[in-house]
This record gives sequence, structure tokens and C-alpha cells, in this order.
Amino acid sequence: MRNLRVNSDRIGADLDALAAITDPGRPWTRRAFSPRFDQGRDWLRRRFAEAGLDIAMDAGGNLIGTRKGSDPAAGVIMIGSHSDTVPDGGRFDGVAGVIVALEVARMLDEQGICLRHDLQVVDFLAEEVSVFGVSCIGSRTLSGVLPAPWLELTHEGRTLAQAMRDVGGAPDQMAARRDIRAFLELHIEQGIVLEPSGTDLGIVTDIAGIERIEIVLTGQPDHAGTTPMTRRADALVAAAALVTDIDAEAKRRAAGPFHFTATTGEFQIEPGAANVVPGRVRMLIDARSSVRAEMEDFLAWTEARARDLPPGIQAEIRLLSDNHPTPMDAVVVSALQAAADMVGASHRRMVSGAGHDAAYLARIAPAAMIFVPSKDGRSHCAEEWSETADIALGAEVMAEAVIAIDMQEGE
Amino acid sequence: MRNLRVNSDRIGADLDALAAITDPGRPWTRRAFSPRFDQGRDWLRRRFAEAGLDIAMDAGGNLIGTRKGSDPAAGVIMIGSHSDTVPDGGRFDGVAGVIVALEVARMLDEQGICLRHDLQVVDFLAEEVSVFGVSCIGSRTLSGVLPAPWLELTHEGRTLAQAMRDVGGAPDQMAARRDIRAFLELHIEQGIVLEPSGTDLGIVTDIAGIERIEIVLTGQPDHAGTTPMTRRADALVAAAALVTDIDAEAKRRAAGPFHFTATTGEFQIEPGAANVVPGRVRMLIDARSSVRAEMEDFLAWTEARARDLPPGIQAEIRLLSDNHPTPMDAVVVSALQAAADMVGASHRRMVSGAGHDAAYLARIAPAAMIFVPSKDGRSHCAEEWSETADIALGAEVMAEAVIAIDMQEGE
Repeated sequence: MRNLRVNSDRIGADLDALAAITDPGRPWTRRAFSPRFDQGRDWLRRRFAEAGLDIAMDAGGNLIGTRKGSDPAAGVIMIGSHSDTVPDGGRFDGVAGVIVALEVARMLDEQGICLRHDLQVVDFLAEEVSVFGVSCIGSRTLSGVLPAPWLELTHEGRTLAQAMRDVGGAPDQMAARRDIRAFLELHIEQGIVLEPSGTDLGIVTDIAGIERIEIVLTGQPDHAGTTPMTRRADALVAAAALVTDIDAEAKRRAAGPFHFTATTGEFQIEPGAANVVPGRVRMLIDARSSVRAEMEDFLAWTEARARDLPPGIQAEIRLLSDNHPTPMDAVVVSALQAAADMVGASHRRMVSGAGHDAAYLARIAPAAMIFVPSKDGRSHCAEEWSETADIALGAEVMAEAVIAIDMQEGE
Repeated sequence: MRNLRVNSDRIGADLDALAAITDPGRPWTRRAFSPRFDQGRDWLRRRFAEAGLDIAMDAGGNLIGTRKGSDPAAGVIMIGSHSDTVPDGGRFDGVAGVIVALEVARMLDEQGICLRHDLQVVDFLAEEVSVFGVSCIGSRTLSGVLPAPWLELTHEGRTLAQAMRDVGGAPDQMAARRDIRAFLELHIEQGIVLEPSGTDLGIVTDIAGIERIEIVLTGQPDHAGTTPMTRRADALVAAAALVTDIDAEAKRRAAGPFHFTATTGEFQIEPGAANVVPGRVRMLIDARSSVRAEMEDFLAWTEARARDLPPGIQAEIRLLSDNHPTPMDAVVVSALQAAADMVGASHRRMVSGAGHDAAYLARIAPAAMIFVPSKDGRSHCAEEWSETADIALGAEVMAEAVIAIDMQEGE
């Protein structure tokens, strides 16, 4: 057991307390814009206050606790993540980063460390895909890039704008923050790289870009019993070949030097009756890479492949969304790496295949992330688990990096 | 234009009149056990009565019109089909056979032809898959093979038994008919063999058997962005390879001497989220052949193939239903073929890939069918179309075959 300045027991107790605030029978559910989420935030607000933080809510509905620095002109070092969850999962996803940020502030107080910069502990609003169908509401707003039409998205008669106001936000007053000198986020890995290799931490160098490609194949919905095998235009058979080829192409690219994944995650057939040849398939491909050129190249490959179809099958291809890869800031990455070395945490540089609030913060500030191991790589499910000791070690690294950046910035 | 004894205009007018009885805005919908179906039956009952038929309802809810024969001991020649439809389709499917049966009775009267046998014109209840999830209710009951547990199937609070009673049936009194000396059914082809080859009629030699094989593949639902391509157990990728191989195997068998089709018609993935590797796929395969050994062989092939899966993927395989092929009666087939030759209708022997009431009638009586061409092979859709001239030619053949069988049986 390493001798840490952060309090591992306190981190564990906080994680347990927040986990207990869940929709009953659906661990661990605390979705943004739900009463359960508000309950979690009430608890956080009290813990922020107990830690001596000045509490505020910004235009994006982000809960921010500020620990004043010595130099009002120095600007802000921000740390944090999100407390909302997906349905049925999220005991650590986001939550770990919020509690660690809080712990860093508490530890600095206990150690009598005064920073030059204001330190802001943040709980971003609605990082997960919310009931409005969109994600990263808080971090997008704070970075000034929340698309205005999204405010009119409606769920059960309530607009996103109203839902943001209901948690204390003021979406009409969106403006990109310009005072943040560094942003640091700790998150669980949500993947299977760290745990099996016995590595304490991942130092994130890039957040992968994500493109979502929709392919609709149209054939002919004929009678399954009376249509000879030679006279069919079976959309499912054509789509199956496409799924196979996309997977092979993704594996080929993933074997190269850059992070690459491609997944057919949505797949619906019509009419979907036992006795009818499938006439239509809609599939959605999620492709991710740390390198923009790989993404563009894969899209071109997919378009060419989806034009090469059996007779009678037509394809429509649409790029539904296209988020570019985000490199993390080299200075903040170096600070995290040096801190990990100092604390004695083993680490490896890695690409985040998942999106994070840090990708939006990176638009307005030097930003970087660290990952702590996820048991069996599972996340977004009830089994999601990270060890408190691993999270505490990450907290110590975050604290050291904050202190180093605070001094660096002062030089 | 051939000189027919049946009345082509009357057939066309009857088809139009019955087509007009459809759920509004959903041509051509008259589902069994719906008020619209009862409306269709009221119309049919009037037309049966106008044709001088004695009307009765049997235990299976089949509407039967009887034209008395000269020899009360001779038994019954039955002709007919069904007047219920699938949703959004069925202008000719079943209906054509009922109207043709009625026309045969009318023509015999007009020509002053007295048969030895009673001639029964039948409209079977619920041939299509009904709201209770099962099909061929009337013909199964008449043949004494309706499974007793089906009577308890419930839709919107009503049991199948009650629904059968509501149309005038008496399911408790099910008993296999033993008095039917021959059953003949005219039906639309629902396939694409007759029309392109310019053939007037299909003489059905066998009704294919149908087996429904459910395969559930289970992998691991991981995060699509963070799980490396090499560490996935993607149930969709495994299922796609299975779909491809099943299609190839079916094409190989279909190229052989026997009728064979296999179709993956239902296919659902879970969780079906853009950012999650599919963890589970359920697929349903519909395999049909005129030869029982082919069906058994294909099932064995499928079971072996579904055991040969990538690491991390498990399969469960269940045979959900298994109906044996039904050969048509050689004597009735010969009578239909001879009648077609006499009338001058071109014809070819063929296997019915679709199931029909005749498959149940074949259990208790010599049975056979003829097919009339379907435009573009389409059926079970609004575009379903058969030419009145083709149907009338089929009616003439049916009438000649009935007369021939009536005489044959008397020899």
C-alpha cells in the first residue's frame, strides 16, 4: 500500500454514498434530468460545501465548486467529470472523476497547499446520451458549442432548454469559457487494456473521433416459400456480407499503427416475418480512430463496398455524425505522466475509444485525461467495477499534476 | 379468348365485390375474427344462397355451401379455399379459390349437370396466420388435427375457442370428416414461376414441408469504442457469417432435383445501440422442401454449422415447428392435368412452397391443387394481382376435373 496524501477511505465512502442514490431495482441508474439525478446533485452540493467549495451553477447546468487561488488573475484549473449515468449502469463511469476532483480539493486543504489558480471541481451535466438523444450537454455549453437547435429537442413535452433551466442552467447565456488554464479528468477505462496488463493508469494522448455511418439496403420482400433461391433480392443476405467485410476491414486497420474500431451496433430488418424474404435492412456503423485520415479513408472504403451489391439490392449511405479526433494537450499530458512517475504509478499512453467531456474542454483549454482500470473492461452495465485503491492512486496523480501545472503556469 | 362454360365476367365482378370489403385505407385487409371478415362472410353467404347452395357452418367455423348430388351414399367432392387475408394484402390469395368454387357450382347448374356426389363449396376459417398467431384453423379442425391447447390462445381477452364460436363454429365438436372423396383447391401461385414462362396453370404435386429453426447466438456486449477489435465476441459478426452460409447452402440444395428454400426471415440484435458491440442475436430460419430427407439433412447441417463459432460465441438451437411435406393425391392430380389438357390450358407440375388448407385436407381425403399466375410473383401485399382470364381458365379446369372425378368415382 502506497503512502498517499489523498484519503482512499473517504473516496470509497463517497462512491458508495452516490451509488446508493439509484433508481430502485436498476443499479446503477441516475439519468440526467431525472429526479434521481437531482437527488445525487443535492448530495454532491452538500459534499462540495463541506469541502469548503463555493458552489455555483453555470449556463450549461454544470455544478461547479470553486476553491479560491492566491492570484485572481491566474485563471482556473478545472478538474472533474459527470455524475449522470446510462440506464442500468454507471457506478464509476463519470462518478469516479467527480469524487476524485472533490478529493483533490479536500487533500489540498488538509495539506495546507495554496494554489495560485482558482481550482474548480466540476460535475458536467448530461455527459451520457440523455433522454433527449444527445450527450455532453454541459461540456458542450461550457465550451460554447452546444448546437442551438438541440435546445428545442423535446422529451415528454419538455424541451432540452427547459430541462436545463430546471436543473439551474441558463442555456440562453451560453458563452465559451476563456479563463480555464488547464482541464484534467480522471475516468474509468471502459476497456480491457489496463487490467490484464497490470498497469495502474492510462495516460490519454487522444480521444478518438467517431463517425456514424447509416446504410439502408433495399431488396424485395418476397414470399419465403414460393420464391426460388435464384430469384431473390434478399436484403439480409446482402447486409450480412457487408457486416462480415466491415469487421474484416476494421481488424485490418486495427492491426496498423493507429487506434481503430468499427462496429455495426444497430441492425434492423423489415418486414421481419418468418415467411418473408427480408426486403430492407438498416444498419448503423460506429467507426473510431485517433487519426482523421483513417476515418475519412474508412468512410470512402465503406461507400465503395456498399455500392458493390448483388443484383436487385440498392444502398443508401448517410454520414449521420462525424466528430473529429481530439489530441490531448502535450503539456498537461506531460504533467500527468511526470506525476504518475513521481507517485510511482505504472502507466501507459493510450487512446480513448470513448468520447468524454474532455474532448469539448480541449476546444477552449489545454486538456488531458487519465484512466483507471475497469474490471474485465466492463462498463455501462451493473457489473462495472473499479477498485477504490486504483481510483485513489489516480487521485494522487491528479493532485500532483494540478500542483505541478499550478507552478508551471506561474513560471 | 377461349370459349368457356364458366362466366369470366361474373368471377371478375365477385372478386371486385369482395375486394371492396376491406379495412379502409389498408387494401386488401379482411383478417379472420374481425368485423370486416364477418362482413365478407355475410356477402359470401348471400352469394352462396343466390347460387342455390344449402348453407351450413361446421365445427371449425368453415362456411360450407352444399349442392346435392344424385347418390346420397356417394360422399362429397369439396372445392374451395379461404376468404381471410393477411394485413394489407390478399385481393386474390384464398379469395380466388372461394369464388372459383362458387362459380363451378353455378356453372354446373346453368349447364344442367347433375353430379352423383354432393358438391361442397367451402370457405375455410383463418387460413392466414391470425391474431392468435396460428393458421389454418378451419382446415385443421375439419381434419381433426387442431391442437387442443390452441383453443386457449388469447387475443385481447378472447380465446380462440370463443372467437371460433363467435363466427358460428363449435370447436368442442371437432371430428375428422370421413365423407370427402376428393378435395380440389385453386390458389394463386404467390411465386414467380408461371407468369414469366407464360404458363397458364401449375399442377401442384407436393406441398413443401416447413421447419422453423431458431438460433440464438450469445457473445459479449462490450463498449464499441474501447474494446479492441481483437478482444470482441460480436454476436452480429458471428450471425452474419451464419446467414451467408445458410444462404449458400440453400442455393446449393435448390440447384438439386428437389424444391428447397431456406430464409432467415427474423433477425434481432441486442442491445442494438450504436456504441455497443452486439451481445446477442436471435434468428429464425424457415426451411422448406418437398422431400422430408432434405429437411432433416438441412437441420443437421444447420446444427453442425451453428456449433462452429468464433471464440466467445455460444449458440442455442431449437426446432420451433416442423411440418412434413404433403404429396398431393396422384388420382386427383391426374384428373386436374387431364382437365387442363382438355380445356387447352398450358400447365406445369410444381411444388407449392407455401402452405395451404389442402395440406390438411390431404390427411383425410385425396387432395390436389392448381395455381394461377401471380403478377411479378407478388403476394401478401397490396400489389398482389392475378388476371380474371387466368382465374376463369382455372375455374374451367376445376369444373372439368370435378366432373371427371364424379364419373371416375362412380365407375
